[in-house]
Amino acid sequence: MPSSVTRVAILGATGYTALEAIKILLRHPGARITALTSRQAGSPPVATIHPSLVGRLDLCLEDLSPEEVARRADCVFSCLPHGASAAVVPRFLESGCKVVDFSADYRLTDPAVFAQWYGEPHHDPERLGKAVYGLPELFRKEIVATSLVANPGCFAYTAILSLAPLVKARWIDLERIVVDGMSGSSGAGADPSPATHHSEVGNAIFPYNAVDHRHTYEIEQELSGLAGAPVPIHFTPYYCPFTRGILAACHGFLTRAASRADVLALYREFYRDEAFVRVIDLEKDPNASWQYLPYPSVGVVAGSNYVHIGVDIDQRRGRVVVFGALDNLGKGAASSAIQNMNCMLGLPEDSGLRGVGLHP
Amino acid sequence: MPSSVTRVAILGATGYTALEAIKILLRHPGARITALTSRQAGSPPVATIHPSLVGRLDLCLEDLSPEEVARRADCVFSCLPHGASAAVVPRFLESGCKVVDFSADYRLTDPAVFAQWYGEPHHDPERLGKAVYGLPELFRKEIVATSLVANPGCFAYTAILSLAPLVKARWIDLERIVVDGMSGSSGAGADPSPATHHSEVGNAIFPYNAVDHRHTYEIEQELSGLAGAPVPIHFTPYYCPFTRGILAACHGFLTRAASRADVLALYREFYRDEAFVRVIDLEKDPNASWQYLPYPSVGVVAGSNYVHIGVDIDQRRGRVVVFGALDNLGKGAASSAIQNMNCMLGLPEDSGLRGVGLHP
Amino acid sequence: MPSSVTRVAILGATGYTALEAIKILLRHPGARITALTSRQAGSPPVATIHPSLVGRLDLCLEDLSPEEVARRADCVFSCLPHGASAAVVPRFLESGCKVVDFSADYRLTDPAVFAQWYGEPHHDPERLGKAVYGLPELFRKEIVATSLVANPGCFAYTAILSLAPLVKARWIDLERIVVDGMSGSSGAGADPSPATHHSEVGNAIFPYNAVDHRHTYEIEQELSGLAGAPVPIHFTPYYCPFTRGILAACHGFLTRAASRADVLALYREFYRDEAFVRVIDLEKDPNASWQYLPYPSVGVVAGSNYVHIGVDIDQRRGRVVVFGALDNLGKGAASSAIQNMNCMLGLPEDSGLRGVGLHP
Amino acid sequence: MPSSVTRVAILGATGYTALEAIKILLRHPGARITALTSRQAGSPPVATIHPSLVGRLDLCLEDLSPEEVARRADCVFSCLPHGASAAVVPRFLESGCKVVDFSADYRLTDPAVFAQWYGEPHHDPERLGKAVYGLPELFRKEIVATSLVANPGCFAYTAILSLAPLVKARWIDLERIVVDGMSGSSGAGADPSPATHHSEVGNAIFPYNAVDHRHTYEIEQELSGLAGAPVPIHFTPYYCPFTRGILAACHGFLTRAASRADVLALYREFYRDEAFVRVIDLEKDPNASWQYLPYPSVGVVAGSNYVHIGVDIDQRRGRVVVFGALDNLGKGAASSAIQNMNCMLGLPEDSGLRGVGLHP
Repeated sequence: MPSSVTRVAILGATGYTALEAIKILLRHPGARITALTSRQAGSPPVATIHPSLVGRLDLCLEDLSPEEVARRADCVFSCLPHGASAAVVPRFLESGCKVVDFSADYRLTDPAVFAQWYGEPHHDPERLGKAVYGLPELFRKEIVATSLVANPGCFAYTAILSLAPLVKARWIDLERIVVDGMSGSSGAGADPSPATHHSEVGNAIFPYNAVDHRHTYEIEQELSGLAGAPVPIHFTPYYCPFTRGILAACHGFLTRAASRADVLALYREFYRDEAFVRVIDLEKDPNASWQYLPYPSVGVVAGSNYVHIGVDIDQRRGRVVVFGALDNLGKGAASSAIQNMNCMLGLPEDSGLRGVGLHP
Repeated sequence: MPSSVTRVAILGATGYTALEAIKILLRHPGARITALTSRQAGSPPVATIHPSLVGRLDLCLEDLSPEEVARRADCVFSCLPHGASAAVVPRFLESGCKVVDFSADYRLTDPAVFAQWYGEPHHDPERLGKAVYGLPELFRKEIVATSLVANPGCFAYTAILSLAPLVKARWIDLERIVVDGMSGSSGAGADPSPATHHSEVGNAIFPYNAVDHRHTYEIEQELSGLAGAPVPIHFTPYYCPFTRGILAACHGFLTRAASRADVLALYREFYRDEAFVRVIDLEKDPNASWQYLPYPSVGVVAGSNYVHIGVDIDQRRGRVVVFGALDNLGKGAASSAIQNMNCMLGLPEDSGLRGVGLHP
Repeated sequence: MPSSVTRVAILGATGYTALEAIKILLRHPGARITALTSRQAGSPPVATIHPSLVGRLDLCLEDLSPEEVARRADCVFSCLPHGASAAVVPRFLESGCKVVDFSADYRLTDPAVFAQWYGEPHHDPERLGKAVYGLPELFRKEIVATSLVANPGCFAYTAILSLAPLVKARWIDLERIVVDGMSGSSGAGADPSPATHHSEVGNAIFPYNAVDHRHTYEIEQELSGLAGAPVPIHFTPYYCPFTRGILAACHGFLTRAASRADVLALYREFYRDEAFVRVIDLEKDPNASWQYLPYPSVGVVAGSNYVHIGVDIDQRRGRVVVFGALDNLGKGAASSAIQNMNCMLGLPEDSGLRGVGLHP
Repeated sequence: MPSSVTRVAILGATGYTALEAIKILLRHPGARITALTSRQAGSPPVATIHPSLVGRLDLCLEDLSPEEVARRADCVFSCLPHGASAAVVPRFLESGCKVVDFSADYRLTDPAVFAQWYGEPHHDPERLGKAVYGLPELFRKEIVATSLVANPGCFAYTAILSLAPLVKARWIDLERIVVDGMSGSSGAGADPSPATHHSEVGNAIFPYNAVDHRHTYEIEQELSGLAGAPVPIHFTPYYCPFTRGILAACHGFLTRAASRADVLALYREFYRDEAFVRVIDLEKDPNASWQYLPYPSVGVVAGSNYVHIGVDIDQRRGRVVVFGALDNLGKGAASSAIQNMNCMLGLPEDSGLRGVGLHP
């Protein structure tokens, strides 16, 4: 193996975000998977758990010590639950590994806020505020310079990108931003549960954690930082009968006159250099041919690292609505983790990530 | 046929709302379907278009004149498109029939507003403001006394019931009410279209008519009437991959202190006498057994005349969110039409309507 | 309560088949639910588990002794798992109750076959062969005369009705009948499981128990009885991403010349007096208007007690294919149970059952 | 552009199979898209029709003459309808282009069979039998040597690969092979139609073209060739509520003793050198951990060029069942077309095709 190939270990490899990371790494020219951990008895081949990998990856799921993982890897993806992640991350950092933490452990900067919403004291409080929040669109420089990236929550990623230009420009009332977040079932993970039982959600939609969803605090932290002022977010999530994707519907009340074209221009400018953020600025044409959507659809970005952002303005009532769509397992988790890894390791930022959404 | 049985004709009987009305009338002890109209060539049996009726209804789809319809019916359900409906409704009224109009033709009281949003002058402007808006929960007395009911739009029905108590009590900022309306595909009707093509919507969600959806004007008209002041509604609809149901997520900013219990009490009191409005006031119990939802799901009310309403309060940020769930073809169209018919004709209001939602 | 109202108890009331039975009984003019049992701690109101019943049924789920159940009920529906059901059914019979057993305990007549496929000796072997297999279309007389009905398995119900006329008439090779059974997710019950996890099945189809599915033995037992000769059934089931319904695709090799019209006539004649079996005998018309299906769809019978049966003939190759569609929770479980109860108790056979399928 | 990059034109680029081909070509190191044709007025950018391509492909849809297409391309993919395709394919061949025809025009070798099932005489009958049927797993040598590949029908691809080893080895009764083919909605294409209207198929399954589906004749032609004897196929297709994928359930009656292990070994050997055919030979383990499937699922191969094949044996009754799963737009259309192109042009056969299925 040439020294130029980054060796990647994935902790907690039975879940869906780990599976997605594996798939992207299989097509990544500069990385190689060298360890997959899990507490599954008997070290089964990964393909017995993830059948899409049959004939493509011969690794087994192993119950490895952190030391063994650190020996095998240059970069560690932790797909462990919060709490469990912070219990081992310090050891990888001390061994010189780069770490992308998929859990919530290093996202919030304030240990008290963490303790309140995650129900336990933080295992590694001194690193809070030092880890970098893994949004390359906003924090590329910091990501390049760090060894520990806190990968954002999937709703947070969608909402922050959808709102950042308006919030930073202060075109909207910062006190009254309403966000409805519609999530596919894979957002709940691979373990069966009532809310993602097909008979319950397969032909339905319902809200959950209608107030104080944990991602709210990430969104508020990052948008407040952008605005230089507290930005409360009025956020509610929903489960929907699709497998992948988040649509964030972000409503703001305009504090200045603006047309749809103005807002589109603001977004195009803000994301001018971002390869993976696409502003959908099609004309609203009532006579358009079929398949023509002037707004994003989660079905169009599923399976990709792209975020599609669309907007509209209600001139009569002074509202702007921004729609952000991404794949919760892709841009909302695994593919942004690899984008972060690419930044940290000096690889081309889009390595492994140029695939287009699987539509239809 | 005893004189006590109401004879019902349905105009435009090939669509989904007409089909739903047919099904309810088949179990209605005081009504009988006597005519089904359509422009289909050859007067085919209705069961060749609606196969669930095979062996249950032997009527044919006929291209009947209004006069013939009026001869056969005591009550006419018009499932014709807007414009077409107002072109014939006056003739039924003149013949002494009761009419429930499923179209938008008689919902708005202002002909100018109609003309602006429906793209043509109104055919029967002098009846605007005289027809009764068909929400028995708000206008029962007026419905009992009228011959012409304008059945509400499905989003409008959900949003108005979800917001009426808060708006009437003025517990929220009336200027900044945000409503996201998530609709099943049957809301788009029985004609194939790109937005409801399975490959486009079957594993996706997307917004449409993001501002100025026509139902916005009904919601504003009725809530403004309740409040005695203009109430702008910031409304956006979405198509989702379920067949039946609307979930309206209605966000308001509190103008007074209120707990979740206070809001639940307000709603229980407001709908105290309403058999078909159910306030979901379950405790939020994180240790609850499975299938426990403290909020409504559209999967629970599909196939019924019930509206489930749930609420939550974000004390920290001063937001109340109300979730209204109903079946867009049932309570949002056909079953409320029959509830209106029952009121107009002096039949028991719940005749034909006591069925429980088809869950799962 | 008038003596003419049958008191019904439902054992194991947290499941989906029990819920379906509750809903039908709520509209049944001659029956009333008097007990719902479950081992849930604290006797919660049934509506906290089944939210569609909010405001419609005030009973609690109780952990009742068989004696208490027998005191409260004239008819007992056992929705307990196999094994558990046969452990208590004898006590209800001894108390004079009628019993409909939803489990597999009394379906097979041979205790050795039961033991082989259900993995344990039978608790009540002397009653095997005395209970009546609950297919009113074939065994109405016996059902009327018994106190114990074994309600058929959902795949078995569909396959037996689909094949009975051809098998009895011996128009097909009895050794080579192939049946693919496509089931909705509710067939797996209300407990979350990997196979019915939305992310696994929501956009997929896969086989399970590809040979020797337990229902195979019921189908073989009943069709062999009809034929007067052993009829092996080559059966495979699949999970599909719809919530309700079974489509049985039954393939046979013709042993005599027959047209599609001949087979349709055979089926119409066989089911001439059956209100709930509908032979879909529409012409195959390539120019037909939309929504025209010459075959059954499970989406058309969901929520009803109807079975739709369609057929086609491959003249060139000598194959007949019969499609049977029903609702696995309705005709495949709860509504046929009520049809059986009606027969046993001398009530009108269609009481509570005349509802039409919820299409779309 | 280096001479080593193959220039590809796609005819009829508004459809789903064309879109899939575009996506694969975007990641193909040795190919470049140089023309996209369509009759859309105004030469719109392709991304206005296929929004997943926003920011990734700047080509317009053009109404080009065959001559212009031939000037721009080394290889032409025809996604035109049958009939239209054979009307232009000869011109590309005469210009020296390689052609992969997605339509049915060159699949059948007998013009009379074509005329009977496609309803019109063939436009280019002398080339029938000279074009190569595009199954690299069976006809790699011929594909390498030809300029015209007839890309197989999606059902045909699945059924032929699923049955080839058993048919060639003659382990089953060749007269009585039953195939049920369950297709996702994208198999019907991008144009809205009743059968793929979400409200009709989104929560249902139904058969269509139950006998004599056109793909039957391809399957029979190729399997008869393999067997050296006529092999009739008893085939029925179904629409299911997933977007991508075909599951072919292929039932055969064993003519010799064989265990599941024997059949698995036969398939492993037959496809030993095939990178894209994976025999799922997991043990049937009733105690296996979750997500463990001993059979294929279409959800696991969607978005890839892989075929997963699983088998089971009913020893008691002498049946073998083979399950083949692939993505109808991928391996069943666009990705196999690119595999064929790679073969014809001497490129690495897996160029652009190594992506793993998008599961979940």
